[in-house]
Amino acid sequence: MNATELGLPMTVAAQGLPARVRIHEVGARDGLQNEKATVATAVKAEFVRRLAGTGLSTIEATSFVHPKWVPQLADAEDLYAAVADLPVSLPVLVPNERGLDRALALGARRVAVFASATESFARANLNRTVDESLAMFEPVVRRAKAEGVHVRGYLSMCFGDPWEGAVPVPQVVRVCRALLDMGCDELSLGDTIGVATPGHVTALLGALDGADVPVAALGVHFHDTYGQALSNTLAALQRGVTTVDASAGGLGGCPYAKSATGNLATEDLVWMLRGLGIDTGVDLDRLVATSVWMAAHLGRPSPSRTVRALSHQEQ
Amino acid sequence: MNATELGLPMTVAAQGLPARVRIHEVGARDGLQNEKATVATAVKAEFVRRLAGTGLSTIEATSFVHPKWVPQLADAEDLYAAVADLPVSLPVLVPNERGLDRALALGARRVAVFASATESFARANLNRTVDESLAMFEPVVRRAKAEGVHVRGYLSMCFGDPWEGAVPVPQVVRVCRALLDMGCDELSLGDTIGVATPGHVTALLGALDGADVPVAALGVHFHDTYGQALSNTLAALQRGVTTVDASAGGLGGCPYAKSATGNLATEDLVWMLRGLGIDTGVDLDRLVATSVWMAAHLGRPSPSRTVRALSHQEQ
Repeated sequence: MNATELGLPMTVAAQGLPARVRIHEVGARDGLQNEKATVATAVKAEFVRRLAGTGLSTIEATSFVHPKWVPQLADAEDLYAAVADLPVSLPVLVPNERGLDRALALGARRVAVFASATESFARANLNRTVDESLAMFEPVVRRAKAEGVHVRGYLSMCFGDPWEGAVPVPQVVRVCRALLDMGCDELSLGDTIGVATPGHVTALLGALDGADVPVAALGVHFHDTYGQALSNTLAALQRGVTTVDASAGGLGGCPYAKSATGNLATEDLVWMLRGLGIDTGVDLDRLVATSVWMAAHLGRPSPSRTVRALSHQEQ
Repeated sequence: MNATELGLPMTVAAQGLPARVRIHEVGARDGLQNEKATVATAVKAEFVRRLAGTGLSTIEATSFVHPKWVPQLADAEDLYAAVADLPVSLPVLVPNERGLDRALALGARRVAVFASATESFARANLNRTVDESLAMFEPVVRRAKAEGVHVRGYLSMCFGDPWEGAVPVPQVVRVCRALLDMGCDELSLGDTIGVATPGHVTALLGALDGADVPVAALGVHFHDTYGQALSNTLAALQRGVTTVDASAGGLGGCPYAKSATGNLATEDLVWMLRGLGIDTGVDLDRLVATSVWMAAHLGRPSPSRTVRALSHQEQ
């Protein structure tokens, strides 16, 4: 018998944590966008469909970036059309007004823009300064809001930057405030290179609270590069955060290592939340089965420890 | 440049955590005892020597069990003699009075016995009931204390058992009390199958406090089977625990999967503690280099995420 059949983990609630967490599932977009081999649209659609079948309520579907930048997502229209009937939220990324046009034409009701907390990454990823990129997003957010569309603002490099090293907390707070002030409904605080630790998470959330950023508008997006994603998540839950980004099977690793770890694996998150008695609505066994299925398509094992343990998957 | 060269992780202390943590390094014993291929005594000794060179102050060296049970540790005498000059604590495991005789003959100043919180594991591992195994340890502990030797009591299956599933907290507290009452100086609360979650950790530590078990006498020994070891460690630190067991490079995995994860990797722990500003005395870069060196000897990569990230090690 595996652990879940034995009734493990035991559920023992901890004080001061939320009763419910919404998981923002990014495996289909963030997880697959860096795959070298093309993943067939039908496989992606089936993946999204299976994810929806696990009880996940928010499944980021794709990104309407120019195919030149992310060839893996060149099928955004076809994929979105193939899953639009699912009874879940299907946010999509839009880098600019052209991307928003494409998303709106398909009837998308949730979009996301992606900003950077550092000048170096804004330059590398968007070829703009931080303020220039905010200026680019402003009309996107305004038009989306005018259409009644929910807007998420991703913020990269909130805890460290591969060129600049340390990222001062006030610098992150400033960009968060700017994104909310232009109309974003929700922010996702990204630890893009996985260097956050729990005290840093607590400090940033405290500073955002001090800047009148409501915790209900915040999600956290941790990477497991140094194995810290779950302890950072625990620190965020202790500060009242109720939206956590994760990627089924831990899809979306660093480019330099096979099965290396980028995104927090949804299964590892669900395991912890189940133990804490925090409701997610997710069926863990179905989720593990979905990640095992996807891993077979990709031809390499999941880096999720929970997937490995529950599926007795060889590395 | 890697992250440490960039000054990452940023150090941001969190309230209510200890200023200093003692890492009880188990890689040389717990990590290597299940290796199928024999590791040469000289390699093990060099491993212990390099670990000592990283600043680790407590390095569990070997186990004086009968070689029939753990063939990999049949060289306990030779290994201990080869490292006894190191200026660190070198605890050794002793299952019974014969083992204690061997350890004392070599001048060991710290020994450990290993008990079980569950009847199923006591039967499987010690071929005794829990109470019979406690009776077996009692003269071992008494004699060790009479010799002025420090005694650690390991307690397995504190959070779940692969036969019994849930393990009630009061059952764990009872065995902890018994081990302390017979003279153990320190306990190590083992999550042998990795099923603990943070609320469970908090609850057990609270119950032990209620049973007058001083937190200073407690260490935690988490496994990363489901990726939970560090968040459980954070919960333990928040309850005042200052002794944490870990294994360099995450050595000591589940037998069923190559590079699968058993013990918490010391590097992942040191990374978190460094970020939290908690002093460990450990040089992380030297520790990573030691684990990379050992991984080359074992012919497979380290499962530690921090080792992989800092060494750019392919999986």
